Amino acid sequence: MKLLSFEHAGRASWGAVLTTPTGDQVADLGRYLPQYPTLQAYIAAGRLDQAAADAAAAGPSLPLAAIRYLPVITQPEKIVCAIRNYHDHHREVVAAGLDRELSAHPPIFLRVWRSQTAHEGPIVRPHCSDSLDWEGELAVIIGKEGRNISEAQAHAHIAGYSIYNDASIREWQFHAKAIAAGKNFESTGAFGPWMVTADEIAPDRPLALQTRLNGEVMQRTRTDNMIFSVAQQIAYASTIFTLVPGDVIVTGTPGGVGWSKKPPRFMVPGDVVEVEIEAIGVLRNTIVQAD
Amino acid sequence: MKLLSFEHAGRASWGAVLTTPTGDQVADLGRYLPQYPTLQAYIAAGRLDQAAADAAAAGPSLPLAAIRYLPVITQPEKIVCAIRNYHDHHREVVAAGLDRELSAHPPIFLRVWRSQTAHEGPIVRPHCSDSLDWEGELAVIIGKEGRNISEAQAHAHIAGYSIYNDASIREWQFHAKAIAAGKNFESTGAFGPWMVTADEIAPDRPLALQTRLNGEVMQRTRTDNMIFSVAQQIAYASTIFTLVPGDVIVTGTPGGVGWSKKPPRFMVPGDVVEVEIEAIGVLRNTIVQAD
Repeated sequence: MKLLSFEHAGRASWGAVLTTPTGDQVADLGRYLPQYPTLQAYIAAGRLDQAAADAAAAGPSLPLAAIRYLPVITQPEKIVCAIRNYHDHHREVVAAGLDRELSAHPPIFLRVWRSQTAHEGPIVRPHCSDSLDWEGELAVIIGKEGRNISEAQAHAHIAGYSIYNDASIREWQFHAKAIAAGKNFESTGAFGPWMVTADEIAPDRPLALQTRLNGEVMQRTRTDNMIFSVAQQIAYASTIFTLVPGDVIVTGTPGGVGWSKKPPRFMVPGDVVEVEIEAIGVLRNTIVQAD
Repeated sequence: MKLLSFEHAGRASWGAVLTTPTGDQVADLGRYLPQYPTLQAYIAAGRLDQAAADAAAAGPSLPLAAIRYLPVITQPEKIVCAIRNYHDHHREVVAAGLDRELSAHPPIFLRVWRSQTAHEGPIVRPHCSDSLDWEGELAVIIGKEGRNISEAQAHAHIAGYSIYNDASIREWQFHAKAIAAGKNFESTGAFGPWMVTADEIAPDRPLALQTRLNGEVMQRTRTDNMIFSVAQQIAYASTIFTLVPGDVIVTGTPGGVGWSKKPPRFMVPGDVVEVEIEAIGVLRNTIVQAD
């Protein structure tokens, strides 16, 4: 089941993607189940295992092509992002002259929801820097609240999987070792197009991941090249704080980012960046210059 | 005008502190103005300049001693925290062998609201580490939305001032250079007791700040020892994202933190930690061990 957030005719809603003989359609679950105004509220209500039945009952109401995508979870309480969590990305960071040891713990930083942007929405390059880089990543959406979750239990807390482009303003990222600044510019964190529910992707199934800039492959990996597994990342984060439904774990990017290239390559207005993850889909964004 | 968030008889509310002949009382503005269920909503409505009139009209309804404090802003959208923003703290960090240059930009990290705790509430030491340290800081509450705010305009975006104890799990902070982990444990970020509205504290007025552990002075400074001013911090943060009413800028801690002492000194269950800032008040917390 693919679940997504969207806007149509000026109204924010959420729903499920239905395959029909006349093409992909959206079941408008926000309209059908007004007691759950957001996908986040639906997940929090523990209703996810009824999603297929709810979508069938609601029926197709809009062509998929007619909606404007919103970030899959529009306002996550927390967006916990992994740093250097692929071996090849770690190697390119070290090769770039940054003296960084492999961490003994899953290194994290936080994004604010206001930094998100949607599938097919713009990634906005700010005025203050042209060092806008891509980072294709697997996103994990939390389905069940928990604190001090064990690795063994971690997968039971997952609602589903999606795709994140953790686009970064490199120059500002390196203003401080706590890289939050360069990771939180508005409309840089692309999140979509939808969430594939966890029942469709077995725990730790290796997924091919590819990031393309104007069709050219920039990053290519499988998610089993992660240094810290999804379960380890959930366990670590939940030691710090209670994870709640709709929280997003952004699990790190593989090698091939722009600033590690010689010379560095950054995204410019008009560029189209795509992140594709097997069994999930393609997240596509165009770069625009800030107003 | 002192504004605060509180709980009484199981109900969350907010109000103003009124000095009366029979002692300090709280005007329960959450009850009097139910259209503004939180202090954050009241600030966002642009109503702050009517706070004195609203408090007088509501009248004293509870003795201050009868309430349970909540974090001044209970769920800020963003909590933007400064790193090494006092010269003496920077020197002690360098002396501790951490090779860190003075930053050319205001280095920041993010806290999540779930890491907050209230005046007189517990600061919780987790099971995973005993390296719980104090950091007394001036907190600035944003009153007016803005992006790309200039330093000259920054003070016009401030609703008021409060006190933060940016208590840190040092061991986890140093898991990664992006120190978010050790800065986000639940019930560590103490915030209170109230907000003093900006009309009562002139821009850039130097305020004495003192942190005491069981009565012993651990940190003592004035806020004009900051490396980056409040205005510079607001300008920087607002380049990254829109600041909105209720956002909190936690402006950095002076020298005298526990891990810089030889041997390091950390807080243990039963300790009482106080942060006092001139013209604002005293933020007091007791350390408890996690359940």
